[in-house]
Amino acid sequence: MATVPLLDDAAAAPQAAAVFADIRATRNSDFINNFWRALANDPALLAATWERLKAVMAPGALDPLTKELIYVAVSTVNGCGYCIHSHTAAARAKGMTDAQHGELLAVVAMAAQTNALAAALAVPVDSRFDAAAPLPPT
Amino acid sequence: MATVPLLDDAAAAPQAAAVFADIRATRNSDFINNFWRALANDPALLAATWERLKAVMAPGALDPLTKELIYVAVSTVNGCGYCIHSHTAAARAKGMTDAQHGELLAVVAMAAQTNALAAALAVPVDSRFDAAAPLPPT
Amino acid sequence: MATVPLLDDAAAAPQAAAVFADIRATRNSDFINNFWRALANDPALLAATWERLKAVMAPGALDPLTKELIYVAVSTVNGCGYCIHSHTAAARAKGMTDAQHGELLAVVAMAAQTNALAAALAVPVDSRFDAAAPLPPT
Amino acid sequence: MATVPLLDDAAAAPQAAAVFADIRATRNSDFINNFWRALANDPALLAATWERLKAVMAPGALDPLTKELIYVAVSTVNGCGYCIHSHTAAARAKGMTDAQHGELLAVVAMAAQTNALAAALAVPVDSRFDAAAPLPPT
Amino acid sequence: MATVPLLDDAAAAPQAAAVFADIRATRNSDFINNFWRALANDPALLAATWERLKAVMAPGALDPLTKELIYVAVSTVNGCGYCIHSHTAAARAKGMTDAQHGELLAVVAMAAQTNALAAALAVPVDSRFDAAAPLPPT
Amino acid sequence: MATVPLLDDAAAAPQAAAVFADIRATRNSDFINNFWRALANDPALLAATWERLKAVMAPGALDPLTKELIYVAVSTVNGCGYCIHSHTAAARAKGMTDAQHGELLAVVAMAAQTNALAAALAVPVDSRFDAAAPLPPT
Repeated sequence: MATVPLLDDAAAAPQAAAVFADIRATRNSDFINNFWRALANDPALLAATWERLKAVMAPGALDPLTKELIYVAVSTVNGCGYCIHSHTAAARAKGMTDAQHGELLAVVAMAAQTNALAAALAVPVDSRFDAAAPLPPT
Repeated sequence: MATVPLLDDAAAAPQAAAVFADIRATRNSDFINNFWRALANDPALLAATWERLKAVMAPGALDPLTKELIYVAVSTVNGCGYCIHSHTAAARAKGMTDAQHGELLAVVAMAAQTNALAAALAVPVDSRFDAAAPLPPT
Repeated sequence: MATVPLLDDAAAAPQAAAVFADIRATRNSDFINNFWRALANDPALLAATWERLKAVMAPGALDPLTKELIYVAVSTVNGCGYCIHSHTAAARAKGMTDAQHGELLAVVAMAAQTNALAAALAVPVDSRFDAAAPLPPT
Repeated sequence: MATVPLLDDAAAAPQAAAVFADIRATRNSDFINNFWRALANDPALLAATWERLKAVMAPGALDPLTKELIYVAVSTVNGCGYCIHSHTAAARAKGMTDAQHGELLAVVAMAAQTNALAAALAVPVDSRFDAAAPLPPT
Repeated sequence: MATVPLLDDAAAAPQAAAVFADIRATRNSDFINNFWRALANDPALLAATWERLKAVMAPGALDPLTKELIYVAVSTVNGCGYCIHSHTAAARAKGMTDAQHGELLAVVAMAAQTNALAAALAVPVDSRFDAAAPLPPT
Repeated sequence: MATVPLLDDAAAAPQAAAVFADIRATRNSDFINNFWRALANDPALLAATWERLKAVMAPGALDPLTKELIYVAVSTVNGCGYCIHSHTAAARAKGMTDAQHGELLAVVAMAAQTNALAAALAVPVDSRFDAAAPLPPT
């Protein structure tokens, strides 16, 4: 099920087809996963999303695998089944071992429980955790 | 504000005081942050939470900084202000640079938006993302 | 799968059957979607939910399509697959175009990412955004 | 801070004032907490919310304290600081002991972590958990 | 679909098999549900999760059924379909009646709506809800 | 409190200062709210976020006020206090009346409660809500 048609290559508008081509070139694979086929119903949104994703996930101060681990963590808390599947697969493709997967899950579960505890206790933030410099008067 | 008193050292029961001592020894710091002072109202819960946290966040297949980045990501999606503050500070203490912080935020924001898009589009999971081996008949 | 049986017309208790009849009359359609068939296991909850929905979604200061767009946005963030499907369909039935659907998704994705950024940065609210009039002393 | 003024008794419209009076009578207390003073900006929404709350939280198949515990659990996961405070106070007023509060928190934290694990693992639902009776052909 | 294989008894490592045995003995049933079969890919995480669950859900200041109701409430807000199914079944096994299930749902839905209202109105917490004792100067 | 310093104009790097200038020109106001001052710690992230926001929120198939209502709805469900404040103010600046605000809240609260009910009941999606065209064999 989906709320929009999943567009195959023939059904994609030219702007969407160009994004599909860039996805294939960037990933060095012919496979286009369903997320992009669904987004292709709005070629401008497809292009903006893909361009930003490509920039954000590129190697930088954090390595690509670390970025995928963070992506899986966010997707898990948001309960996005599709994203959990696609980014867990991406993490494995970038070298995530079973042991790393297990530790990722353990940290996510740990954070989930202390998040709940801190919320239920309404713990006030310790002043030493404040990084905000006071703004000068304006 | 909080939903329980924040217990200072004098108010902590013996089991809680022992946890405070272990936190101090483990972190090599006299500072006990408010989360533990709030949890100390239930010494058994305090002990179980601290013991598990210590085990989960120890170096393993993932390094401690990577684990903190994941922790901040989860806390952000859960909207836990306290946890965002304490674990961002912990990540900095473990070496997170400003550039890494910026990339962490960029990945979290990216994931948040594609999570929303995949949910709104109700994208079906591609079969190649399935890692489940079929169970034999039982 | 479901956690309760989906009740067909014959299985619905009289109070539930009366709600089914009102849904059919209000929508001018014989179709009763699964949400109501599941809720029918608790006829009082079914009735209260339907009555409130009918009142809230009626034309008022906001038009019905705008209300459906808001409904889809909320359902997306809550990750409610059923609700995303049913209210996207309802929005289309009330005239949502493909272009409007695309913009709805773009706004939802934008908000999701700035929500994450504002949370991770723990941005303090600017005082000019405060609408609360001070309460007189009591 | 708030996004609307908090209305004191003098500022409340007649329909809102009537709700304030019913809250006072029902709770046998003169105190009106800020939630209702904020909602009073829309007297119809105030009335509908209060009437439904009064019905839902009344003793029934579940006792009032159990209902408050559930309310705190939901508010915690939703990260609603206001609701956590007000319903924790309500639970205490209805007899919640410190030990019960601690166990509530332990269960919420436990559920939060297994929710995260089940999501990250994308565990398929066991068929024996399905309560849906098949619908007859229509 | 799942992101890991679901391990049958033959595929489980010795530490995982020992947990399976304890689950069977504790529940007096041969059935091992998919959650544990998925977690078995990381035997240490499986063991830690099961041990903690067993301790938290044991009878205490709250009875086991109340704990299951809280578990279902948390799982609902987190949108964890698997957990909703498994813990609704567990609640029924512990005696939850249809009327209690209906009231549980009504409270969860009520809390969800006032959580949203309190958040949108940004209602400031009433000072009388503060349980935090001031910390002495340190 | 914040997890980064809020940068005043003098502290902003040239790329950030250029974004501040564009925000001022676009909004025809000298005011820069704290969100941008916090994001300015990562000028590239600031620029990418502002450029995308400007494009997404521009008039299109949906009018700017409708987009702000959707933004407030998403921010409410995500529990982002900062965003609720800033976008409620933005909606008012774009003409939102008190009556429209009240109806927005009523719809958000309604959706929140049916989202919870649909999740707890695990209602299967009606086949008529499926918009996905089957993909041709590949």
